[in-house]
Amino acid sequence: MRIVITGGFGFLGREITDTLLRTRTHGGSPIDQLVLTDRFVPPGAPQAADPLVEIVRGDLVECLDEVFAEPVDVLIHLAAAVSAECEADFDLGMSANLDTTRALLEAARAQSAAGGPPPRLVFSSSVAVYGSDPALPLPPVVSESTLPTPRSSYGIQKLVCEQLVADYTRRGFIDGRVARLMTVSVRPGKPNAAASGFLSGIVREPLAGLPAICPVRPDLRVALASPRRTVEGILRIAAAEHGSGRGRLDGGLPVNLPALTVSVAEMLTTLRRVAGDAVADLVTVAPDREVEAVVGSWPSVFDNTRAAALGLEPDPSFESVVRAYIADHPDAVLVKA
Amino acid sequence: MRIVITGGFGFLGREITDTLLRTRTHGGSPIDQLVLTDRFVPPGAPQAADPLVEIVRGDLVECLDEVFAEPVDVLIHLAAAVSAECEADFDLGMSANLDTTRALLEAARAQSAAGGPPPRLVFSSSVAVYGSDPALPLPPVVSESTLPTPRSSYGIQKLVCEQLVADYTRRGFIDGRVARLMTVSVRPGKPNAAASGFLSGIVREPLAGLPAICPVRPDLRVALASPRRTVEGILRIAAAEHGSGRGRLDGGLPVNLPALTVSVAEMLTTLRRVAGDAVADLVTVAPDREVEAVVGSWPSVFDNTRAAALGLEPDPSFESVVRAYIADHPDAVLVKA
Repeated sequence: MRIVITGGFGFLGREITDTLLRTRTHGGSPIDQLVLTDRFVPPGAPQAADPLVEIVRGDLVECLDEVFAEPVDVLIHLAAAVSAECEADFDLGMSANLDTTRALLEAARAQSAAGGPPPRLVFSSSVAVYGSDPALPLPPVVSESTLPTPRSSYGIQKLVCEQLVADYTRRGFIDGRVARLMTVSVRPGKPNAAASGFLSGIVREPLAGLPAICPVRPDLRVALASPRRTVEGILRIAAAEHGSGRGRLDGGLPVNLPALTVSVAEMLTTLRRVAGDAVADLVTVAPDREVEAVVGSWPSVFDNTRAAALGLEPDPSFESVVRAYIADHPDAVLVKA
Repeated sequence: MRIVITGGFGFLGREITDTLLRTRTHGGSPIDQLVLTDRFVPPGAPQAADPLVEIVRGDLVECLDEVFAEPVDVLIHLAAAVSAECEADFDLGMSANLDTTRALLEAARAQSAAGGPPPRLVFSSSVAVYGSDPALPLPPVVSESTLPTPRSSYGIQKLVCEQLVADYTRRGFIDGRVARLMTVSVRPGKPNAAASGFLSGIVREPLAGLPAICPVRPDLRVALASPRRTVEGILRIAAAEHGSGRGRLDGGLPVNLPALTVSVAEMLTTLRRVAGDAVADLVTVAPDREVEAVVGSWPSVFDNTRAAALGLEPDPSFESVVRAYIADHPDAVLVKA
C-alpha cells in the first residue's frame, strides 16, 4: 500500500506519519511506501531516515507528477493555508486551498481514468465551515446536517473543496472522504497564524514557563480535540469502508471529528489543578473584542453521532488532554505529569 | 445605470431583456445601457435594434475586458452549461460553470479594487443544489436552511459558485445575491438538454399540435415556476436592498424562488381542461426509470417564506401558468386561451 500525505511535515502530518511508521500497516494492509510532500522539510527530520518514507519537496502542484508516478492507494490531503493567512491574503487562500486541491483531484482522477484504482482521498476540512449568518444563527447543537454558512474565506474554501470531493467521488473518479477537524488543543510547537492559536497557547506556554495571553472572557465555551484524537479520527476515516452500520461511512456527508466542549475557565482551572498555581498564574486574561467575536462565532457543542458510528469518541476530559500533552512532550514542559 | 446580462440570448436572458426594455428602469433608476453577452446571438434578434442594447458576442471569459470597459452597476449572470451537459461532460461543466464564474467574479472585484463601485451581481443558481444523500434524506419541506447535498455535477458547480459569491460579497469585492431558480414551466421554444425538459414539453408540444412523452408516473409531484414569476424573482432580488424587513435581503443566504407544487397528473388534467381532449390526448405516459429517479430526487415542496419577504409569491395555479403561456406565445399554440 502506497500512502501519500500532503503537508507531511506540518504538525498533523508529522503526527500521522509517526503513527503510521509505528504501526507500519493501515486498514489491515502493510504500508509499502509513505510519501510525504511539503514545501518545507526540516533538515534532519527523523522520518526521513525510515526506509518506508519517500520525501517529495516543493510546491504540491508542481510535485503531482512525482506523487502519482506510482499508483496512490491512500492520499491524506493536509496541505493548506491557515485561516488568518486566507483572511489576510484572499488570493493566497484561493490558490493554496482551492486551486491546489483541484489540481490534486485532477491528478487523482487521471489515475483512475488511466485504469488504475480510484485513489482513496481524505480531505481535511475544518469546523471553520460553520459560521453564523445574520438570517440563520447556528443551532445550539451542530451536526453534519447543519447548513454551513462560513464567515471566513478559509471556511468557504474548505466547504467548496468538500463539494468537489463529493462530486469526484460520486462520479467514481476517486474514493473521497471528508474529515472536519475541530480546533486542536494542545497543539505543540510554536504559535501559528490561526485565530484559535491561544486555545493551545494558554496551556503550552505556561507549561514551558512562558507567559500567555487569554484574549477571550473565560466563560466562552469552545469545542476541542486533542492531537491524538484528531490523528485517530483522520486515520479511522481513511480506513473505513462505505456502507451502513458501525465502523462504516454512511453516505457522502463529511464527518465532524468528535469534540469536547469546555469553557476557557475550565481549561484554566484544569491547568491550575494539573500544573500548579505558579504555572497557571502565567496566564493573563485580556479579552480582545475581535478575537472574541471570531472565536465566539464558532459552534461549541456538536452532536457526535456520526463520528461515534465510526467508533470515534471525544476526549473524555480536558485534564486527559493536558496530561497527554505533558506525557508526549517532555522536553517542552517544566512540570512532570 | 449600466446592466449586464450574461447568457443574454438564452431563454431567460431574452425574457429579462424584454422586461427591462419595456420598463427602461431598474430599481427606480433609468437604464443607460443594457449589455447582453452570449456565445450565440440569433441573426436579426429584435433586442439588437434597441438603442439601449449593446451586444458582446463570444466566450464570456474572453469578453470580460469589454464588459467591464465601463463601470458595471448590475450584472445578472445566467450563462451556464445545463444539467445534462454537465453530467455528460464533467470538464465542460467545470469550465463553463465554475471557471467562468470565477473569472467573472475576479473581473467584478477588479472594478471595486480600482476604486469603482462594487458591482451588484445576481448569480442564478438552481434547485439542483438539492439532492438526497443516503445518510440524509431531504425533509418533506425544503427551505434555504436545508443542507444542500447535490447529486449532480451541475448542482455541485452551482453550490460552489454560491459560496464564492457569498465570500466575494462578505469581503466587499462585489454586492452579490443568489437566486435559486425552480424548474421553469412552461418554457417556450425547443426542448433543451435538461432532465426537467418534459415538464414544459408535456404542455408546449401538445399545444403546438405535437405529440409528447411524459417519462414519469403521473402521481409524481414537482415544484415549478412560470417564466413570468422567474423573471420577476430575479429582477426583484437584483433590485432589493440589504437589511431586515419586507422587501429587503436579510443576510447572505440564497433565495429559493417561490415554487408551485403540482403533481404531473394535475398538470395533464389542467391541459385537458384548458385545451381540450384532442390536445391532451397527444401526451403519452411512458415512465422511464432513470428520468423518474432523477426528477423524483428533487424536492417538490418549498417553504417560500424567504421569497415572500421580498414580495415574491408562487404562481397561483398551474392553470394560470398554462393560460399565460398561451397568451404570451400565440404563434406557438393551435388553441386560443
